[in-house]
Amino acid sequence: MTPSVPQINPDRLHQRIADLAAVGAIDGGGCARLALTDADRAGRDLVCGSMRELGLAVSVDAIGNVVGVRAGRSDGPPVMTGSHIDTVRTGGRYDGNYGVLAGLEVVAALNDAGLTTEHPLAVAFFTNEEGARFAPDMMGSLVYTGALPLAEALAVQGIDGATVGDELARIGYAGPAPVPAAAPRAFVELHVEQGPVLDREGIDIGVVESVQGISWTEIDIRGTSNHAGTTPMSMRRDAGWAAGEIIAFVRELATELGGDQVATVGRIEFFPNLVNVVPNRAVLTVDLRNTDEALLQRAEARLAAHLAALRDAEKVEISTRKLARFAPVPFAPEMTDRIEGHARALGLTTRRMPSGAGHDAQMLAAVCPTAMIFVPSVDGISHNVREYTEPKHIEAGAQVLLAVLSELAGAGLPAGDRNP
Amino acid sequence: MTPSVPQINPDRLHQRIADLAAVGAIDGGGCARLALTDADRAGRDLVCGSMRELGLAVSVDAIGNVVGVRAGRSDGPPVMTGSHIDTVRTGGRYDGNYGVLAGLEVVAALNDAGLTTEHPLAVAFFTNEEGARFAPDMMGSLVYTGALPLAEALAVQGIDGATVGDELARIGYAGPAPVPAAAPRAFVELHVEQGPVLDREGIDIGVVESVQGISWTEIDIRGTSNHAGTTPMSMRRDAGWAAGEIIAFVRELATELGGDQVATVGRIEFFPNLVNVVPNRAVLTVDLRNTDEALLQRAEARLAAHLAALRDAEKVEISTRKLARFAPVPFAPEMTDRIEGHARALGLTTRRMPSGAGHDAQMLAAVCPTAMIFVPSVDGISHNVREYTEPKHIEAGAQVLLAVLSELAGAGLPAGDRNP
Repeated sequence: MTPSVPQINPDRLHQRIADLAAVGAIDGGGCARLALTDADRAGRDLVCGSMRELGLAVSVDAIGNVVGVRAGRSDGPPVMTGSHIDTVRTGGRYDGNYGVLAGLEVVAALNDAGLTTEHPLAVAFFTNEEGARFAPDMMGSLVYTGALPLAEALAVQGIDGATVGDELARIGYAGPAPVPAAAPRAFVELHVEQGPVLDREGIDIGVVESVQGISWTEIDIRGTSNHAGTTPMSMRRDAGWAAGEIIAFVRELATELGGDQVATVGRIEFFPNLVNVVPNRAVLTVDLRNTDEALLQRAEARLAAHLAALRDAEKVEISTRKLARFAPVPFAPEMTDRIEGHARALGLTTRRMPSGAGHDAQMLAAVCPTAMIFVPSVDGISHNVREYTEPKHIEAGAQVLLAVLSELAGAGLPAGDRNP
Repeated sequence: MTPSVPQINPDRLHQRIADLAAVGAIDGGGCARLALTDADRAGRDLVCGSMRELGLAVSVDAIGNVVGVRAGRSDGPPVMTGSHIDTVRTGGRYDGNYGVLAGLEVVAALNDAGLTTEHPLAVAFFTNEEGARFAPDMMGSLVYTGALPLAEALAVQGIDGATVGDELARIGYAGPAPVPAAAPRAFVELHVEQGPVLDREGIDIGVVESVQGISWTEIDIRGTSNHAGTTPMSMRRDAGWAAGEIIAFVRELATELGGDQVATVGRIEFFPNLVNVVPNRAVLTVDLRNTDEALLQRAEARLAAHLAALRDAEKVEISTRKLARFAPVPFAPEMTDRIEGHARALGLTTRRMPSGAGHDAQMLAAVCPTAMIFVPSVDGISHNVREYTEPKHIEAGAQVLLAVLSELAGAGLPAGDRNP
């Protein structure tokens, strides 16, 4: 057949998103597919099935990353797109899933048009991007690019006590493909913004120039449990009070540093956790992010100094554990220029911006030219069942992805036809 | 036989304490016998067995309070002593248990001496004094004295979802004796201080003049869960931050009010409780105590005002629930004078003091002349497996209890023989 100009099929794309959202669906329209759970396995099986239906050669590596390759006229490293399909416990249906399924829609569009690209085209989804069950997050892409040793990742124990290696084997996704993998020719990740900027400013496409640096610290405080009624305030070693004081400090720290600095205490536990007992232990996590490495290090130093002061003031013992640490990552200018150019050629409004969230793309950026495409998240709501992106933006993002991947892979389209 | 002067038997008392401590024993020498659990049932069975061995007429009422009565020469209301045998999850072996078992030792001593008192003598233990599983605490004595309707108490749901009524029936302690019960002639409760005062000052016996007022509030905060990396601090409705801020405020409040005011946040929970998600819900408890009702009300008002301000500042919803509220309780002067007199006659040093903890005695004080005897707690450690009271103090407290109960019940001892 004569090759025609590839077009994404909106209905087909929306249907794929709905089908995957039905796996691990929770009240409110969201998804709960924590990494390597049975729900994650079901989601993986669904996407792998679609990959095979589209004629992709599917491979699974030792950390459970899945790559589906569409052959090109020549061999060599593929142009790759992809994201993740694991979710947080109260996740939405677009986070991660959208980028993977839009990648499949690009393949479907090329198939429909009967186009073979010069270079192979790959669609991937990476294991445990969220880090909601196993730390660090972005584990699959870390191992894929050689930034985290496989053995170390497999040994990680989750919040429920299970280990990555055992769970991978249990769900049947400990594959034979080697890691670290050969570097792709280029990598493009399409994702919902997960923040309020594009939605608030009414812009169609975010051209992501960098990813915020991330610092996750678990703080374990030990005091003395004692009767809540008979122990004078001055004689307490209250691990719970110390935890509360850290929560209050972390907010002050972020407000004071200003700029892109954000700080969150999302997880906490008291022991013995009884109304009339002074806690003898408290465990909490602090999530610090900044686009500027120097400022992020300053925030970390300020937190450490505060913990030292608190240790002396309340006579509690405080130990800390780094759960994750990533420096800010700049993307390749030639890639961001390309995304911006195609988006504008398609008549879409664009904005250059950093990513406030961590993404697999930041790991790929270490081994190949990489960039990201953002579409608006209504009210910036993310990691929440109310996460939502309008269909027109879902479609626009996929169109930009098709155009960028077609050019990178060498679909041989006349420039005039590229953006009909 | 000829009546002799009653003497407590130290070895027998220490053995009874050790035997009960073996039920629900946990590492470190403590006990875990949360109210109405299987461990509580086992403890109850052991103490009821001892009561029967001592010839007491044992009755169980509808809320599971157990009363063992030793007949007197005349009928009428008994002189009563007692406490509780339930513990917190990380409880010691003396809290509550000591008062009940010392009461049994008093009965044993009277039996040894072949003495019959004028008035009946009763030893009781009351259900769910700790409130660690079911709120409010002191539930058994509240129902016993008519301060809490039976039906309301039976319907209370515990932190594990079970209800008081179901658990009472399950462990076989929903008894036939009616509540509210007839008022005793007088009530004396012997207890470890659970605070550091007597130990620090090297005093043998605390003559308890009053019990601190207690206010327990559960605070439920609702915000919006959101991505920890992409949500500007200014756009957050962070339930977790609000909780931490309350913890910090409560400490400031207690420090500022000074005096006997204490304030504790012992229990907290975040939802969804993930490192990279802004909590959309936090639930915590605030325990406020003061010996002065006016100051306690001021502390409650200050907390309420602070919650209102926090609600506006962070745009979170905050609802509160009173888990328990007791005004400070003064004890009968003629009873405290009696305790002080007997303690001094026995050559023991004494100190008048308030109780920082809630006790069943404060409920009995509403229906009959009541007071409490305290013995030192080493380092004031309580609600902790390291709770400890020296044997000499355990024995001294029991001797005072014997002397006071003998006089109240009319053992007919010549004054000279009372304290050999």
